[in-house]
Amino acid sequence: MILTITLNPSMDFIYSVDDFVLGANNRTNLPVKMPGGKGINCTRALMYLKADVLAYTVLGGENGNAIRKYLENENMPLISKKISENSRNSYTIMHNGGIQTEIVENGPKISKLESNEIIDDIINIVNGEERINIVTVNGSINNDNDFYYVSLLTALRENVSRKLVIIMDQSKKSLNNIVNNSVYSPDFIKPNEVEFAELFNMNSEEISKESIISKLTETKSKIPNILVSLGGNGAIAKFSGNIYEVSIPSIKVVNPTGSGDSTVAGVASAIARNYNDKDIIRYAMACGMANTLEEGVGVLSLDNVENLFEQIDVTLVSEEIKK
Amino acid sequence: MILTITLNPSMDFIYSVDDFVLGANNRTNLPVKMPGGKGINCTRALMYLKADVLAYTVLGGENGNAIRKYLENENMPLISKKISENSRNSYTIMHNGGIQTEIVENGPKISKLESNEIIDDIINIVNGEERINIVTVNGSINNDNDFYYVSLLTALRENVSRKLVIIMDQSKKSLNNIVNNSVYSPDFIKPNEVEFAELFNMNSEEISKESIISKLTETKSKIPNILVSLGGNGAIAKFSGNIYEVSIPSIKVVNPTGSGDSTVAGVASAIARNYNDKDIIRYAMACGMANTLEEGVGVLSLDNVENLFEQIDVTLVSEEIKK
Repeated sequence: MILTITLNPSMDFIYSVDDFVLGANNRTNLPVKMPGGKGINCTRALMYLKADVLAYTVLGGENGNAIRKYLENENMPLISKKISENSRNSYTIMHNGGIQTEIVENGPKISKLESNEIIDDIINIVNGEERINIVTVNGSINNDNDFYYVSLLTALRENVSRKLVIIMDQSKKSLNNIVNNSVYSPDFIKPNEVEFAELFNMNSEEISKESIISKLTETKSKIPNILVSLGGNGAIAKFSGNIYEVSIPSIKVVNPTGSGDSTVAGVASAIARNYNDKDIIRYAMACGMANTLEEGVGVLSLDNVENLFEQIDVTLVSEEIKK
Repeated sequence: MILTITLNPSMDFIYSVDDFVLGANNRTNLPVKMPGGKGINCTRALMYLKADVLAYTVLGGENGNAIRKYLENENMPLISKKISENSRNSYTIMHNGGIQTEIVENGPKISKLESNEIIDDIINIVNGEERINIVTVNGSINNDNDFYYVSLLTALRENVSRKLVIIMDQSKKSLNNIVNNSVYSPDFIKPNEVEFAELFNMNSEEISKESIISKLTETKSKIPNILVSLGGNGAIAKFSGNIYEVSIPSIKVVNPTGSGDSTVAGVASAIARNYNDKDIIRYAMACGMANTLEEGVGVLSLDNVENLFEQIDVTLVSEEIKK
């Protein structure tokens, strides 16, 4: 069973404006509303993949109530903790024939007390439900502690006696601390090229398949599985010490939002099915791509996933040199 | 007592973004939230003016519940009708040092049945509360009937036996039908220069104090009192057949939103106090200006209103020629 963790969920409002003008009054119809946040999107994708999944999230205020209602309508298996501040809204404005402008609230501040309670909650859930063998920690938390996810990871490693696969999808300082300043490591991270560049203090111009391969080769990371997604250019992966280049077919993207979250869902689901490394990578990429073929976020069709899975090539670039 | 009518209220979210970029992900703090819509803003201004006021509005769905809660927190005297669709949100993004970009939902569609019930409601309220002697009808309604406000005006004139002062603040087709295609007339309208141009099929370049004066002079409108606001250039008014030019002092505008609604509040409040025509005009302008000195919408200080009232000159331009 997969447990997803979303500590900054949101209600997403999607607006269409033909001609969006700054400094003006822009009229629009009522929005499409959909609960979001990385872990919520990932959970939705896992439900489409027919995975055994449970979502943990935090909800507060009137927005939290609205998000809960919408998630219940989706029949999402959910455990939520009540927090004191109001959950956040996010807005996507689709305008001028394909431009996507987002306004994203930072979200409610999670107090020190609340963040400690959240860790206790999660440990209790994992220890109380022995079927949970995979945990995904998705997205950001709005508090002042850049080491919060290191603490959560530490708690999961030290307070759960059985082997857990831990998948973490963070960025910026949180990602850096997980990678460079933590005693314990997750089993999987999925930086995109921008996050990878940040992690290795590279300029974005330096980023290429070659530079990623050489960084992954020369760096002795404790994290066993890393997937660096390169959008339409496929991916580079380092799994169990082996480095792979991933080639993907070109597709017609409808809406890219949630592609990364669907990739995480693909990884978790493939691990749950005991796929081998190459197939985990292919399945993850297929799920990320299948999501981009849909309007919805974290929505995918199993037919598209299977079809794309067959078209993705994973080539071994360099093998781990055993000492 | 003044009854205000708001058939398309909204919850306004006010966001600050330092550098708002189209096509990008723009991060922001939690918004300032404030219920709005023209009649709600007008009611708030009337409360600041210590007027005896009652607000009638329509609310639906989760947004309607949120708006009701916020209005109750303001202690706004409120009668609301439940409608089937969700009330609307509006967004103001303050960005790049003073640019104000608005995203405004059209709002819930009001069905034919609901619009008929609304008219019945209003007639019952006015007939049930004899202290109501002034009614303001503020802003738009989202239904397919451009004659809806004509029907409401007709119902008020035909089904209320006592003399009511009716102030209407609409635009576009609704305003045109009230002015040109209605058997009954309101006592007061307040077009701004753009609305006045629309009403008389003038190009916006043709609009000047002189052209407005000549249009008002040559047109035999059944509406006894018309105030054409010209922003920082003051106003032209036609009251009881006499035409006035209004000169205003220059002020430092903080936030112009709600200025028109505060002007309507000023008119209603001045009529309730039996001011003469010139002083009604001065008070209305003072209230509209006082609102622009505040961050809040429909917020004004009585000191500023009194101070501005003293600085506004209303000069008779042409007197009605009695036959």
